[in-house]
Amino acid sequence: MSPTALETVSVLLEQWSSLPMDERVGAFRALPVGADDDLFFALSIGDQAELILALPPEQRKVWVRALPPDDIADLVQYADEEDRPGLLAQLDEPTRREVRALLAYEEDAAGGLMSPRFARLRSDMTVGEAIRYLRRQAQAQLEMIYYAYVLDPSQRLVGVVSFRDLFATTDDRPVAEIMRRDPLTVPPNLDQEQVARVFARHDLAAVPVVDDAGMMQGIITIDDIVDVVQEEASEDMQKLGGMEALDLPYLDTDLVTMIRKRAGWLALLFVGELLTATAMASYEDEIAKAVVLAVFVPLIISSGGNSGSQAATLLIRALALGEVRPRDWLVVLRREIASGLALGGLLGVMGMLRVLAWQQAFGTYGDHAFLVGLTVAISLVGVVIWGTVSGAILPLVIQRVGLDPASASTPFVATLVDVTGLVIYFSVAHALLTGTLL
Amino acid sequence: MSPTALETVSVLLEQWSSLPMDERVGAFRALPVGADDDLFFALSIGDQAELILALPPEQRKVWVRALPPDDIADLVQYADEEDRPGLLAQLDEPTRREVRALLAYEEDAAGGLMSPRFARLRSDMTVGEAIRYLRRQAQAQLEMIYYAYVLDPSQRLVGVVSFRDLFATTDDRPVAEIMRRDPLTVPPNLDQEQVARVFARHDLAAVPVVDDAGMMQGIITIDDIVDVVQEEASEDMQKLGGMEALDLPYLDTDLVTMIRKRAGWLALLFVGELLTATAMASYEDEIAKAVVLAVFVPLIISSGGNSGSQAATLLIRALALGEVRPRDWLVVLRREIASGLALGGLLGVMGMLRVLAWQQAFGTYGDHAFLVGLTVAISLVGVVIWGTVSGAILPLVIQRVGLDPASASTPFVATLVDVTGLVIYFSVAHALLTGTLL
Repeated sequence: MSPTALETVSVLLEQWSSLPMDERVGAFRALPVGADDDLFFALSIGDQAELILALPPEQRKVWVRALPPDDIADLVQYADEEDRPGLLAQLDEPTRREVRALLAYEEDAAGGLMSPRFARLRSDMTVGEAIRYLRRQAQAQLEMIYYAYVLDPSQRLVGVVSFRDLFATTDDRPVAEIMRRDPLTVPPNLDQEQVARVFARHDLAAVPVVDDAGMMQGIITIDDIVDVVQEEASEDMQKLGGMEALDLPYLDTDLVTMIRKRAGWLALLFVGELLTATAMASYEDEIAKAVVLAVFVPLIISSGGNSGSQAATLLIRALALGEVRPRDWLVVLRREIASGLALGGLLGVMGMLRVLAWQQAFGTYGDHAFLVGLTVAISLVGVVIWGTVSGAILPLVIQRVGLDPASASTPFVATLVDVTGLVIYFSVAHALLTGTLL
Repeated sequence: MSPTALETVSVLLEQWSSLPMDERVGAFRALPVGADDDLFFALSIGDQAELILALPPEQRKVWVRALPPDDIADLVQYADEEDRPGLLAQLDEPTRREVRALLAYEEDAAGGLMSPRFARLRSDMTVGEAIRYLRRQAQAQLEMIYYAYVLDPSQRLVGVVSFRDLFATTDDRPVAEIMRRDPLTVPPNLDQEQVARVFARHDLAAVPVVDDAGMMQGIITIDDIVDVVQEEASEDMQKLGGMEALDLPYLDTDLVTMIRKRAGWLALLFVGELLTATAMASYEDEIAKAVVLAVFVPLIISSGGNSGSQAATLLIRALALGEVRPRDWLVVLRREIASGLALGGLLGVMGMLRVLAWQQAFGTYGDHAFLVGLTVAISLVGVVIWGTVSGAILPLVIQRVGLDPASASTPFVATLVDVTGLVIYFSVAHALLTGTLL
């Protein structure tokens, strides 16, 4: 392919999501052979599905068949119910069987990620025979080859041999001698996030999927894991930002869906925040006596929210990567109390200085400036410790009860800390200012 | 390796970060041959470096040499300044030269990720010669083989051939006929986040790194990209949570470092939040006349903060994945105004209902309940629109001026919206309530 065609493809990819469908089809069909491949394989599954369905029927077959069975399964799952039979009809019978088998698995489980087309060997082969046998298999559409899997006559997995090891050995050695026995495997129903963690922990390029009976069903390769990792990180971030995860890129999500995904949590958080109005109302007498107390309310509650956001973000990410587990709660608690004390102390001092400086400059706080400053400072220490501790522990608790810790979103923690922060602040005020301002 | 050894390794990996260094060394040295490999290669670069430096000097060499040159370079970069010459001294001269060359690149650029050990071919070879030549190369420590790179006599990259294509072809065909010319390449100084995007966009398993003179320097393989993707997602999430990114896992970060990374942003946000105290102070007269206004302050500002968090999270992630670019600002603006209107309308109605319900039940708001409710409702619409718009546009602006959009953290947006939210709220109150409550 000429560099110009490569550029055309790059430009088209840049603009793809903003082009109307008929222009996409036109541009795609105008590409020279080779360049159309490049464009097609660079598209996301969703864009591939839309493009295929927009092509004239006689052109669909070649593009559906260009995909490996695991991608076809994703494509079918992505398409609307009524388009699915039409897509499946484009396939030859063996591939259709493979795709049907994959469709039986959850899209976000190991079975939904795997490809059934892996390189197979028998343990009684020599290395020379194995390489010749693999060359015959390469003519069929195999997934990229990192490892070859050694199966017994009943398709049970008995060992794995890396391509490099095969290559580096002499032709006459038996495969059984250089293969690794009892390789690491994953079951077909393992969640994709767990699969990604197995890859990270064991630094693998591919992992075989083996069912309860020990039969090898397929392989998951590291390139599938990159997408999983990006997808899971996007989901966690969006939950962390206080909304339901979008399933599609921002600009591809229609407005109604996006508003719906945001409205649920926003309304729920609003109901939580209504408690702040109730809490504030119960302190109306104090505010009426000392309006100055109201002045620091946003400062106090947002400091709690910010420190809670930090702690929640840290722990949610650490849980997602498997760096921290719920049973580490005591270590986490100790670290966060220490952090909260240090951070709250810092903000407390800053708050006190602010009050004293304004008092010095403008006499803002009258006779009781020091007491007001002390109320603000002590409340800040309390609220920040409470923020860090609840922000850190909440994700652990949520994971412990089997839910997704990313639901302990930063707005959720902030809301929790807002209500309790008000109670802390007005309680401190009550203790310090009764008899003077109150 | 027996399944028991595999279990021992798994248990050790689970506990690794909580074990003191002498126990790590003891457990590692007690492992049977093969199992020690498994453990070692599953450790992070940081843990590998610590372990190697804790081993008796005569045992270091074998483990340093077990790593490919790009990992050795990371290891050297991770080690303290004074330990580096000792690590480099363990290497044979050719490897030391390779590692030194890699150390010249930024750790988080393409050059720092690449391996100089890729499979090379000449274009005048036949497929049969190529396979025999690759088998000789496999005996040296090559990176896993996905592609072989066809170089001219002056090491300039002229083409690439996939392993599968080589395998699937007959021995007598010339490599030049089946290789792909003008393959996609990246320059050595490309940032790792950009490199990850090239992989995602073009669905690659490996990409060659080629310098300005067209000389091939190394390859980056997809397994390196998984780590990059996780690392960049962690960094973005931690920034999003309102703190500096940690470089190490949560439990591996010492307390002082962690507090320092959190204190900077927390203090900065606090200074921003101090403006709320100034804003509130300027409305003290209004609050003194109508204490009921203070009651809704936390509700109003947190609703703005929450809607801003959602928008900022969405856009920061979309920018990181390349789904949205700064020049899409007009589309984004239109979507967010529409979303803000819908979401603000929803919260406004809920706020109005809350005021009217309490009025009905307890007569809380006296004669002017409807006006109070209207003030709250209109303020919510205004604050939520302002929150979504500034949360969405700020990351675009920050990216446009060349900074990291993740710095538009959710606490940062919340702080911005808190101050302006107060102004919006009290301005609405002024307009609606002057002559009645005010």
